[in-house]
Amino acid sequence: MDDKLTLTGIKRTVYETIFESDTPAGKVFDVSLLITIVLSVVIVMLESVQDIKTEWGRALIILEWFFTGIFTIEYLARLWVVLHKRNYIFSFFGIVDLLSVLPTYLAIFFTGAQSLLVIRSIRLLRIFRIFKLARFIGEGQNLSRALKASQYKIIVFLTTVMTAVIIFGTMIYLIEGPEHGFTSIPISIYWAIVTMTTVGYGDIAPQTMWGQTLASVIMIMGYGIIAVPTGIVSSEMIQLKRKEKLTTQVCQHCLKEGHDADAIYCKYCGGEIN
Amino acid sequence: MDDKLTLTGIKRTVYETIFESDTPAGKVFDVSLLITIVLSVVIVMLESVQDIKTEWGRALIILEWFFTGIFTIEYLARLWVVLHKRNYIFSFFGIVDLLSVLPTYLAIFFTGAQSLLVIRSIRLLRIFRIFKLARFIGEGQNLSRALKASQYKIIVFLTTVMTAVIIFGTMIYLIEGPEHGFTSIPISIYWAIVTMTTVGYGDIAPQTMWGQTLASVIMIMGYGIIAVPTGIVSSEMIQLKRKEKLTTQVCQHCLKEGHDADAIYCKYCGGEIN
Amino acid sequence: MDDKLTLTGIKRTVYETIFESDTPAGKVFDVSLLITIVLSVVIVMLESVQDIKTEWGRALIILEWFFTGIFTIEYLARLWVVLHKRNYIFSFFGIVDLLSVLPTYLAIFFTGAQSLLVIRSIRLLRIFRIFKLARFIGEGQNLSRALKASQYKIIVFLTTVMTAVIIFGTMIYLIEGPEHGFTSIPISIYWAIVTMTTVGYGDIAPQTMWGQTLASVIMIMGYGIIAVPTGIVSSEMIQLKRKEKLTTQVCQHCLKEGHDADAIYCKYCGGEIN
Amino acid sequence: MDDKLTLTGIKRTVYETIFESDTPAGKVFDVSLLITIVLSVVIVMLESVQDIKTEWGRALIILEWFFTGIFTIEYLARLWVVLHKRNYIFSFFGIVDLLSVLPTYLAIFFTGAQSLLVIRSIRLLRIFRIFKLARFIGEGQNLSRALKASQYKIIVFLTTVMTAVIIFGTMIYLIEGPEHGFTSIPISIYWAIVTMTTVGYGDIAPQTMWGQTLASVIMIMGYGIIAVPTGIVSSEMIQLKRKEKLTTQVCQHCLKEGHDADAIYCKYCGGEIN
Repeated sequence: MDDKLTLTGIKRTVYETIFESDTPAGKVFDVSLLITIVLSVVIVMLESVQDIKTEWGRALIILEWFFTGIFTIEYLARLWVVLHKRNYIFSFFGIVDLLSVLPTYLAIFFTGAQSLLVIRSIRLLRIFRIFKLARFIGEGQNLSRALKASQYKIIVFLTTVMTAVIIFGTMIYLIEGPEHGFTSIPISIYWAIVTMTTVGYGDIAPQTMWGQTLASVIMIMGYGIIAVPTGIVSSEMIQLKRKEKLTTQVCQHCLKEGHDADAIYCKYCGGEIN
Repeated sequence: MDDKLTLTGIKRTVYETIFESDTPAGKVFDVSLLITIVLSVVIVMLESVQDIKTEWGRALIILEWFFTGIFTIEYLARLWVVLHKRNYIFSFFGIVDLLSVLPTYLAIFFTGAQSLLVIRSIRLLRIFRIFKLARFIGEGQNLSRALKASQYKIIVFLTTVMTAVIIFGTMIYLIEGPEHGFTSIPISIYWAIVTMTTVGYGDIAPQTMWGQTLASVIMIMGYGIIAVPTGIVSSEMIQLKRKEKLTTQVCQHCLKEGHDADAIYCKYCGGEIN
Repeated sequence: MDDKLTLTGIKRTVYETIFESDTPAGKVFDVSLLITIVLSVVIVMLESVQDIKTEWGRALIILEWFFTGIFTIEYLARLWVVLHKRNYIFSFFGIVDLLSVLPTYLAIFFTGAQSLLVIRSIRLLRIFRIFKLARFIGEGQNLSRALKASQYKIIVFLTTVMTAVIIFGTMIYLIEGPEHGFTSIPISIYWAIVTMTTVGYGDIAPQTMWGQTLASVIMIMGYGIIAVPTGIVSSEMIQLKRKEKLTTQVCQHCLKEGHDADAIYCKYCGGEIN
Repeated sequence: MDDKLTLTGIKRTVYETIFESDTPAGKVFDVSLLITIVLSVVIVMLESVQDIKTEWGRALIILEWFFTGIFTIEYLARLWVVLHKRNYIFSFFGIVDLLSVLPTYLAIFFTGAQSLLVIRSIRLLRIFRIFKLARFIGEGQNLSRALKASQYKIIVFLTTVMTAVIIFGTMIYLIEGPEHGFTSIPISIYWAIVTMTTVGYGDIAPQTMWGQTLASVIMIMGYGIIAVPTGIVSSEMIQLKRKEKLTTQVCQHCLKEGHDADAIYCKYCGGEIN
């Protein structure tokens, strides 16, 4: 905000286009940036596929330089218009923006540096800027408010799960042992996580009767306690829904809010609500 | 509607039977069509099983021609009674209806065209017409209304999941690499989806300590965030339930709201509600 | 009821003990029957384990005859006290009770008939009689009422899932084909079910890029739509909770029920509720 | 409480530090104890990894003795300050505290006793003491209250699942038999649990058509009935949320209920609530 006010001329226009999304130009910029990011990530992905690299290698390299060029210009433009340059450079997205162009340049001197380009996929997080455009922001805020409201419950839940997983992992290590693939306690804990979250790769599986019995207990627990985070988030969201329904009426006598839709008198001062 | 009014005689009867489902004939037609579709799909399925094809090949071919005959007659009948023929031909079901008979005829000239008959299974979507018959329609509408009401939340959720899956997939590719089965980034993203949705085939599984640590994080995230869509849909459905039950009528005597739909007198002051 | 009234003496006592569970003797009988059933099922289970059969074969046979003896006496006792014998013999539990003793006798003449003894495990369903004893019945009724209230929604949901699974299964069969393990359409549909329900055995897994893309779509769908049955059941249960809260007061003027706890006047006739 | 009052001097200070967590010293003690437990568990874990043991064996042994020393002092300190020593010694945590130091001493005389040190991971349960520190306790209580309120429903649900799993396991044993990996009924029940909880290792998988059909039924059931515990816990939590918010106060003027906890005046008639 302050930044913007002190800017004039082209610099201000560039600032509004790059950093804001409520002007038409800003919206166009945001959407095209996102498409560019998605395309550049797709290029990096395709490069990792051996067959495609062999056949289309040359084209991919040209495209990579093309996208690196665009992102370099974007980075410099951001740097140019921002007043507090240090703030941007060391912000999360500032670092990501830099790291998403650097590897291409480094690859001139060091072979292999290119593979670091995958960092570019973190830029995909900018996708959430797009949501500023539409009514998505309200829904996104509701979601994160519901999650935030239940953060303490979620921490208690996660701690319980982690403790259970460590204890179960240790138990299965003692029961099955290295000869059945449970080569160490960390591996056994990994197995317990795979089992409790109902993922079940099957790369390690218990083979003794007691191991399978313990596995059954873990599975049924994991199957059942999924109900807990679900219940937490559901009740939080219903709560939010209900609050939305509260009127935004302010009592004219005591100026307090939060009255039910069916309230006739202010519940705080007893004054009549129109 | 308009179509029907301008029709007379047999054509009108055929129209009502084929396209509508509130006449007795229409109901009978819908149910028998569905049974025929199911049977024809079963035949196509059985043909794909090698053993059955070897033994019952001849019978299956006869049945296939039988069902193709029925569906051809049905297609021509629809074409005959519909006034705006172009609309039907290029509608979704018009194309599906045609594609579900064509392969049998094509197979006379080209071998292998028959395997396209599986398109016929798309006709199974007509099963939802049956639901027009009973009280299912109300329930189906409630379900889809609840899903529609939460569509923005669901898009935000899916975008978050997709972004997470791309970033996690890229990370596991860097950690595990091609020597452990993560041959490219797209494959690694596929693995991340398999893991986060708690499917866990186990065809690809991390083998290094850091890979297994990252996998554990993805699994616990996937296990936990299932709570989000669940919470969204639950709260939406409860909302719908509540709306169904309450009228928005205000009592004219005491101005209170929240009366049940079947209330005749105000439950607060006893005054009559219009 | 009628049965019981016409019975006298021992026969009536036996009837009350076996068929009812509100007398002390009935409770004792129910619990001991259940323990006997569990033990007999455990014996049948152990017999199927090769190692245990080799070592403890003789003891297991004796125990089997012991349990068969008890269940035969129980069956004959039920037959003796019941007035409408035909009703019992052809009832679900009548047939199960008979089938759970027959195999042991048949095994004298035919070898292998014994393996049919596993039918005995269906007798475990009698476990739900125990629930009549305690306050479990109310909870059980609530559960089944919530499920019953949402049965139409559940049918719509299941039909959607089944149709989706058939179409996806057919698609993966066309994409991957027999050379990657998708040997027929039924097998491919089985795979689609394994994937959509997030079970993911991994015995069959897509290997081409398009197959894995389709699999990803199925997985994310399966991961997301689990929210639908969950939402259905949750909203139904909350509904039930709320109904419980309704008073059981009857309006003295019009004799109607179902008033909210905060109602002062009858919402049907406007009369005051005490 | 009583214990504490009769204590004086250092003993009282030690008691407050070790057993209570509302003094600053107690908080510091609790957090450092937890860190020590986590570290000691990590050491035991690392010792189970063959590579690390070979290289860092000496350091690990020293650290183990170090932690055993600390825990021994802690155990003796607890024993010293507690008045009813027997109560502590035979309490759950008393036994765990002893068992978490004993193995190191036993290992001097018996080789292998050391592997019992993993019992130490049960001490991780002390993590829940930390929650006394913050507002976590309220949330934790809410969670366990919600689970307790629905315990009868959960028992009914678990019994149904267990019965279903036994019957399905027996059926798959009869269908697939030992030649497809279903070597005994207990193994088949284990498979049914793996399938119904949607874990799906894939170490055992049905191979016949009927086996796969039955598996499909189990999977869809398992996929659907997860909605039941979820619905139970959700409705219970929403119930709790609502109770928290509403007082059971009745307005003395208009006798209406349902006032918010922070209401001072009746929202219906404007009268003061005591």
